Amino acid sequence: MSLLVQKYGGTSVGDPDRIRAVADHVARSARGGTEVVVVVSAMGRSTDELLRLASEVSSSQPPRELDMLLTAGERISMALMCMALADVGVEAVSFTGSQAGIITDTTHTKAKILEIRADRLRDALAAGKVPVVAGFQGVSTERDVTTLGRGGSDTTAVALAAALGAGACEIYTDVPGVFSADPRLVPEARKLARLSFEEMLDIAASGGRVLSLRSVEFARNHHVPLHVRSSFTWEPGTWVEEEDPSMEQAVVTAVTHDVSEAKVTVSGVPDRPGVAARLFRALADRHVNVDTIVQNTSVEGTTDISFTVPRDDLEGSLDTARGLMEELGAREVTADEGIAKVSLIGAGMRSNPGVSATMFETLAANGVNIEMISTSSIRISCVVRADLVEVAVGALHRAFDLAG
Amino acid sequence: MSLLVQKYGGTSVGDPDRIRAVADHVARSARGGTEVVVVVSAMGRSTDELLRLASEVSSSQPPRELDMLLTAGERISMALMCMALADVGVEAVSFTGSQAGIITDTTHTKAKILEIRADRLRDALAAGKVPVVAGFQGVSTERDVTTLGRGGSDTTAVALAAALGAGACEIYTDVPGVFSADPRLVPEARKLARLSFEEMLDIAASGGRVLSLRSVEFARNHHVPLHVRSSFTWEPGTWVEEEDPSMEQAVVTAVTHDVSEAKVTVSGVPDRPGVAARLFRALADRHVNVDTIVQNTSVEGTTDISFTVPRDDLEGSLDTARGLMEELGAREVTADEGIAKVSLIGAGMRSNPGVSATMFETLAANGVNIEMISTSSIRISCVVRADLVEVAVGALHRAFDLAG
Repeated sequence: MSLLVQKYGGTSVGDPDRIRAVADHVARSARGGTEVVVVVSAMGRSTDELLRLASEVSSSQPPRELDMLLTAGERISMALMCMALADVGVEAVSFTGSQAGIITDTTHTKAKILEIRADRLRDALAAGKVPVVAGFQGVSTERDVTTLGRGGSDTTAVALAAALGAGACEIYTDVPGVFSADPRLVPEARKLARLSFEEMLDIAASGGRVLSLRSVEFARNHHVPLHVRSSFTWEPGTWVEEEDPSMEQAVVTAVTHDVSEAKVTVSGVPDRPGVAARLFRALADRHVNVDTIVQNTSVEGTTDISFTVPRDDLEGSLDTARGLMEELGAREVTADEGIAKVSLIGAGMRSNPGVSATMFETLAANGVNIEMISTSSIRISCVVRADLVEVAVGALHRAFDLAG
Repeated sequence: MSLLVQKYGGTSVGDPDRIRAVADHVARSARGGTEVVVVVSAMGRSTDELLRLASEVSSSQPPRELDMLLTAGERISMALMCMALADVGVEAVSFTGSQAGIITDTTHTKAKILEIRADRLRDALAAGKVPVVAGFQGVSTERDVTTLGRGGSDTTAVALAAALGAGACEIYTDVPGVFSADPRLVPEARKLARLSFEEMLDIAASGGRVLSLRSVEFARNHHVPLHVRSSFTWEPGTWVEEEDPSMEQAVVTAVTHDVSEAKVTVSGVPDRPGVAARLFRALADRHVNVDTIVQNTSVEGTTDISFTVPRDDLEGSLDTARGLMEELGAREVTADEGIAKVSLIGAGMRSNPGVSATMFETLAANGVNIEMISTSSIRISCVVRADLVEVAVGALHRAFDLAG
């Protein structure tokens, strides 16, 4: 019998009506002759409410206790899901991360999965029951409760799908799939029926919020096909799977954008070996998540280094860079919060030169100045002014005819 | 070093301010050179909110999933408590029932503790940490999460105190201790400094709501002194411990009352062996919790059997009794919801005849008619009209000079 892992996010189980709607859908899947394993997130905004409560109680939030607190959220949603399934005649049984055998390292609040010991899930499936597993959580090798960090429930679902040899992992969310651009910016954006893991990775890394980077990487590494779809319309969404080498790839698949970053520029740095290494090691030591890095050509023996960081990390980045100014011999450190990153993604770019030229021409023709450029084999990203992001995304979407 | 188990009920940890106040108190206890183990209930009305959510989601609530759901409540309060303790410089570590080694049978929603494997708690204490344990919950021999039923957190605390050899178990609540009568009915009621386990058992069984019967039984059986006290005033409360045979016992210690029951009367039953057995076996099979049973003297070969039950069980009791009318040859089954039970408790009653006579005279002098009487060696209970309960309790409190 085929096995399917279905993951339902926070909005999909946000209230009693939603939970019942999901239970109906799980029941239909189960009656259709498929073995189903359900993974649930915490209901709606309940995680935020627990965090608010914690901040009201204490300014000290030991990570072990934060994990203990937050895992209450999925516990509640999975128990309610099993009750709703009982109501529609499906025998279900809930499992905490620990009971589901999700063994992690001991890094609280962002643990890594080391191993899945899924015996209890297999036993439940063999007994004809639907296992409902708490996403986002596991148990450490020290027997403490851990959480997997951002996108953790997706990772739980993909890891279980890999461990159980599922045919696919369905990620149910509040949007119908992955689009050729954000439909809020580009009304004619098209839902993509199919993406390769590599395209999805670049989309996730460049601002597409539908799937977490980590779960897509996990799916790619373990060859688990993903199906991102809506729990509100229940229509087929976007499949993310291995690239099919026999098919022609679209040159450009999607335009993404990201307005969550800020730019830091270190100007007038002497152009000598080791300068960049010193700067970015110091940022890494401070756990700053640097994204794009651009170093301009040397002019009169000095160069400018610019990089983008999540806005939350801006203050730390500036502290670090300014603390190194004297040592590096830099002239100035400046920050710019008014930026946006616009990216084109497409597996067919590898074999189609000229995409970047078209991109730059399109932006120029629409009055959008490019401040930074970075590329990978299937992605081109430009940093532009944030207030021009809508113009830029719309123009690129039209230029590459992504509405189909 | 002496070891103390401190249990904090739902109102004691009802909001962030309360949690911080409790953390301060725990910190003072810990710094005073005592090893402390903390047991917490779910915050305030959070259990009721989870139950409401469950009823909105589903009419089927499998007991296993209900336990999974409800145990989220203590998980939240214990994690918050550890954070509050961190804030005041106390290193604390939370443990679920399972992590604390509370092994139960497999009876969901009212599991019995089979064994306590407290190694992790002992390790935490040895490392100088304060263990904070989720009350009310355990893990079954089948590795499923269980709850201990009504008063479960008190039972957790007493069981841990017994397993760890604690010097005492403090039960913190929203009242200052056990009183000679309910202070809402009798303003001059006195806080009792000391009670024997037997007296406390009879008080709990006859309407005193401060401690659950089960936790008192557990404490008596395992010789754990209890100290019931307020987490709002932090003043010494009531000690419940072994009877001290060298001391003279008070004849009457407390007057209790219970208005939560209803009376069922089966009239005109043929006075022959086996009738009562048949009736009460049928009620037991339906899990009706029968309290007082009175059978009147036979008149012309028939008798009346009356019994009291929790009001929630009234409908089931009537169904059962009416279904047996023909078989028993009974004339009529009637219900009465307008009753109250008033009881006198005192270990000294054993050696002081005349208490019941004084009780009956007092009630008569105050115009209170007695409908049923039942006695044990240290308790006398009378069923009276519910609207006279305040008159009855006040009169008895004065008659036995309980205000001291």
